[in-house]
Amino acid sequence: MRAEVVAVGTELLLGQIVDTNSSWIGEQLALAGIDVHYQSKVGDNHARMVDVLQVALDRNDAVIVCGGLGPTQDDITREALAELMGVDLVTDAVVVERIQAMFGSRGRDMPANNLRQAEVPEGATVITQQPGTAPGLVCPVGDKVVYAVPGVPYEMQEMVSGTIIGDLRARAGDTACIRSRTLRTWGQSESGLAELLADRIDELDRSGAATIAFLASGIEGLKVRITAKGATDAEVDAVLAAEEHVLRRMLGEIVFGADDETMESVVLDLLRDRRLTLAVAESVTGGLIASRLTDIAGASDVFRGGVVSYASDVKFDVLGVPEGPVVSSSAAEAMAVGVCRVLGADVGLAVTGVAGPDEQEGQPVGTVHLGLAVGGDVSSLQLRLPGDRPRIRQFATITLLDLLRRRLLET
Amino acid sequence: MRAEVVAVGTELLLGQIVDTNSSWIGEQLALAGIDVHYQSKVGDNHARMVDVLQVALDRNDAVIVCGGLGPTQDDITREALAELMGVDLVTDAVVVERIQAMFGSRGRDMPANNLRQAEVPEGATVITQQPGTAPGLVCPVGDKVVYAVPGVPYEMQEMVSGTIIGDLRARAGDTACIRSRTLRTWGQSESGLAELLADRIDELDRSGAATIAFLASGIEGLKVRITAKGATDAEVDAVLAAEEHVLRRMLGEIVFGADDETMESVVLDLLRDRRLTLAVAESVTGGLIASRLTDIAGASDVFRGGVVSYASDVKFDVLGVPEGPVVSSSAAEAMAVGVCRVLGADVGLAVTGVAGPDEQEGQPVGTVHLGLAVGGDVSSLQLRLPGDRPRIRQFATITLLDLLRRRLLET
Repeated sequence: MRAEVVAVGTELLLGQIVDTNSSWIGEQLALAGIDVHYQSKVGDNHARMVDVLQVALDRNDAVIVCGGLGPTQDDITREALAELMGVDLVTDAVVVERIQAMFGSRGRDMPANNLRQAEVPEGATVITQQPGTAPGLVCPVGDKVVYAVPGVPYEMQEMVSGTIIGDLRARAGDTACIRSRTLRTWGQSESGLAELLADRIDELDRSGAATIAFLASGIEGLKVRITAKGATDAEVDAVLAAEEHVLRRMLGEIVFGADDETMESVVLDLLRDRRLTLAVAESVTGGLIASRLTDIAGASDVFRGGVVSYASDVKFDVLGVPEGPVVSSSAAEAMAVGVCRVLGADVGLAVTGVAGPDEQEGQPVGTVHLGLAVGGDVSSLQLRLPGDRPRIRQFATITLLDLLRRRLLET
Repeated sequence: MRAEVVAVGTELLLGQIVDTNSSWIGEQLALAGIDVHYQSKVGDNHARMVDVLQVALDRNDAVIVCGGLGPTQDDITREALAELMGVDLVTDAVVVERIQAMFGSRGRDMPANNLRQAEVPEGATVITQQPGTAPGLVCPVGDKVVYAVPGVPYEMQEMVSGTIIGDLRARAGDTACIRSRTLRTWGQSESGLAELLADRIDELDRSGAATIAFLASGIEGLKVRITAKGATDAEVDAVLAAEEHVLRRMLGEIVFGADDETMESVVLDLLRDRRLTLAVAESVTGGLIASRLTDIAGASDVFRGGVVSYASDVKFDVLGVPEGPVVSSSAAEAMAVGVCRVLGADVGLAVTGVAGPDEQEGQPVGTVHLGLAVGGDVSSLQLRLPGDRPRIRQFATITLLDLLRRRLLET
């Protein structure tokens, strides 16, 4: 089964919007075992849209066209599909009702424009999921098929996950289930992980039970994705659970979470379990750690706050760091202890260092000292991080949170 | 003159990487007055790559193919181009020298693999700019042309800006210069801006002297881009300067910067000019404002630091906010005054509010109070922001910095 994604919209060609939809759909198709050999983008032009859809259909079994289903005059995917299928547009009563209900629930009348969205090519069926006013369409063309979905990411995603992937796999005669689970790690490079798991990857290559892929994701960690295929969901889940168990045993404490768990959410959960509160003292990261922690809804029951001690004398005067070099382990430790005291927290994190562009106190760019205070227990770690200013700040952030995570796991 | 961008790489089709190169090139081509009707992506497969390049060449005057010029076995753009041109690959001595020099300067021997990168289709010329080991190519095909550039963004960008745009415009017989300038604004919606500038846009439509486009860019502000065309750089620069002057007069203080100036860099510059230091007290933004300010290299001579007072009693105990409701104007003002005192700064910024998901103190999600203390002068502003948690935090950040900017401009 081969499928092509066609993204529609002049704004994509002009670079006003980056096309993330095609990547997302590409990933879902790959995960479902459907081959993708091409992707195309075309503007809001009838003749060129029909041309691109025809080329895509000629070289594939299925096409997913994304965008151009809105209510305005430049939304012309419906018309292009009708021409491709050689049929007329007809008004679909179900879609009219759905759109009217949507406006009704907001206490507003439906503008006449939106009726355009209820026009579907004769012979097309409407996709069950419809989170917005634009309906998704399944359009048979001979023994092939074109799916049309809106360009709004969450609307598109609901339709692709809810209908299209399953329909494509059924057409491929593939009734197997495919699912994946992602382990997030910190503390090893991609090649280090590959080395640690080399034997297991060889075994899986032979047995075919599952596949493993690595994905470096910056401050989100280095991801290890396990993908398995089986007759039923229960069977696949069992394989994923067993493989997760094997990999966690091989990788040990460098695994900090699975799937949507972030380093911040994991650390906040560990603190919550232990009824500990947290405060952070930041110099080189300048608020990034606090900002990441408070991105998480519900951080407030654990996170008391932080001090961004960017100027040296804020470190001395507010945090009680002894005067002297501030890019040092002793300063990082004193910052961690100081922020606990000042903010009344059980656990203190601290970071001081040099993000560049210039060196500081004779220390080269990338020098970072992390400080950790848990009760009376104070420790520090020196790093020499590669990369530019944003990278140094991000790596310092995830490394410091990871240090706390490992410390909490010991208690 | 019509051009198509072809992005090469199986990782793009699988969604492992989002293709930002095509958007960037699309924007440059649009700015240079070159039409883009299609974009394509194809994997690292010889036959399919030749096929896509042929289709693109048939329907355009020029093609820019991006990626597949690396040293490894799956980098096969060179071979596909040779087949398209009906020629052999030959080793280019200039490129060999460039690559050897690059390795030599790092004190390393050139791996044999990299010699592959010096193989170019016979009849192709090598692009002058070459920041990495991959050379860019200009490949004539009949009276049309294919440009090949590496997939590494900064390498690609240097070649497109340095050679390809100029070459395309020369081929189009277009010797005019095209340049643009972007004004960044805060305080008006896109439709509000369009209304303010409606008469001017009409005048420009008639005179053709310049064009104006709007681009909403979140925490980066709402951008107004002026584009002008003329016989010489000097002539175009004069038009841009005159138009910038007209628009700044019409828009007034909502213009906070031009081109790469961010709200943070502008505020830091204004403070530096006035020899004032800054501290921030953040609740709902949780460190985001401090983090944005310290993203800017050189912030340290102005920015003293901040207090992230996430827990209410940190507001009371550390910042000296009187006990009582913390989502209030009086709390925001007390936070701004308190952080000045605690961190020894001349200017204090403060923000408190409700980012959700739940309401707080009976205030709905999106309620935000901004506080500002400049010397003894203290003020506040209440906002009701739309959107989800990240959007509320971002809008609060830029709005508070803008408040300070306007206050500083008065002094």
